[in-house]
Amino acid sequence: MADKKSPHTRATAKLIGIGVGPGDPGLLPLASAQAIKEADIVFTPVSRFSKASLAASIAAGTGIDESKIQKITFPMAKDTETLQKAWTQAAAPVIKALDNGLRAVFLTLGDPSVYSTWIYLRREVEAQRPSASIAVIPGIMAANAAAARLGLPLVEGKERLVLLPLPEKVGELDAYLPLADRIVVYKIGSRLEELALWVRERGLDEQAHLVVGVGLDREAAGRLIDLAEKEQGYLSVALIRGRRE
Amino acid sequence: MADKKSPHTRATAKLIGIGVGPGDPGLLPLASAQAIKEADIVFTPVSRFSKASLAASIAAGTGIDESKIQKITFPMAKDTETLQKAWTQAAAPVIKALDNGLRAVFLTLGDPSVYSTWIYLRREVEAQRPSASIAVIPGIMAANAAAARLGLPLVEGKERLVLLPLPEKVGELDAYLPLADRIVVYKIGSRLEELALWVRERGLDEQAHLVVGVGLDREAAGRLIDLAEKEQGYLSVALIRGRRE
Repeated sequence: MADKKSPHTRATAKLIGIGVGPGDPGLLPLASAQAIKEADIVFTPVSRFSKASLAASIAAGTGIDESKIQKITFPMAKDTETLQKAWTQAAAPVIKALDNGLRAVFLTLGDPSVYSTWIYLRREVEAQRPSASIAVIPGIMAANAAAARLGLPLVEGKERLVLLPLPEKVGELDAYLPLADRIVVYKIGSRLEELALWVRERGLDEQAHLVVGVGLDREAAGRLIDLAEKEQGYLSVALIRGRRE
Repeated sequence: MADKKSPHTRATAKLIGIGVGPGDPGLLPLASAQAIKEADIVFTPVSRFSKASLAASIAAGTGIDESKIQKITFPMAKDTETLQKAWTQAAAPVIKALDNGLRAVFLTLGDPSVYSTWIYLRREVEAQRPSASIAVIPGIMAANAAAARLGLPLVEGKERLVLLPLPEKVGELDAYLPLADRIVVYKIGSRLEELALWVRERGLDEQAHLVVGVGLDREAAGRLIDLAEKEQGYLSVALIRGRRE
């Protein structure tokens, strides 16, 4: 039934980018579960430093046939030329699958359109095979799952939302306070304490929340400044009230 | 299987807010389909002017038992006191279901944490029944589905996203151009031409896209200024490139 109604999984699509959501297998859309089931091959990104794929383990919760999974090591290089070459290499097995007429899906955390390796992979595939049939099935973002977990709205009525990775200079967040009602901060990583300090200095203790590992076993949620004392910032999302008037 | 793994559908929850996504029934999360199936009663909002519930019709695509559905007319009043009274009245059947020990779900378009009637309903239920067990299962936002449909990223790398309803004064969007890499505009309604004029005046013709009725039969996607000539802005999402440097 998802097939007939879903414009996201056209029958012609040979490569589908799928967002598996932030961690809870129950958040996978029905159309994505169906597309994974119908795929000949399931690609999933891993980093050079960790061969485990969180995206694959989330999809595993829906009963994926593990023999279909093929891991792709995605590039971490900083200089553009090296990165470009690495992406060409990473895309090679996907190109091969397409050339062989296979139906392929690519699993990515969260939503494929938001800070995802899918964006780079798709660009590379389109550059090499301009006529390839490509589709995307959206996924649930960590921001939405974090808000659900906290029981807080992200935005209501006429409110305005800003979503950004923690800036290299945390003070850059100041520019968004007067323009946003809610600021969502991603990619906090090892800098949670730095963000907590900024929150304290701005008097936002009661207005800043954090969810760590939303939907995963190690999930924790609460006031950002409390969690900063005991948690790391990896795979976490901060929700901060803005000061727009 | 979604049950065991999903922290969003705790067995104790008696009222669950569910986002059915923007239009395509295939985008409903597995956990939501399960929760709807297990519910004794399914509430869904309708407006006073249209008794049809788009949220219910999306869920219908997943084979919901229609006899469980109960429509709630949600208030549209502008003055706060009238609105508050109207919400108290709208929440009455939900309170009654909780008092009777029923498992209830409330369906809403997109994600329950984003510009949703759920936010107000939940607030009212919590005010009247502070000990009620309430959970939220997130849903896919129109913004993510629109990006998937257009094949465009929302944000990549260090980019920053702004999401807001079309401001009463369209010129307020100017403030976000230097701070955002991508601006998502909701609630365009009858003012699509006005937004198209702003896009033209800023020289953003090639940087502004629109998806109308994403996932619905009447879906249309393309350059905003082209679509503004033939489409209405109801249930549409604009994606506009910002000018952050």
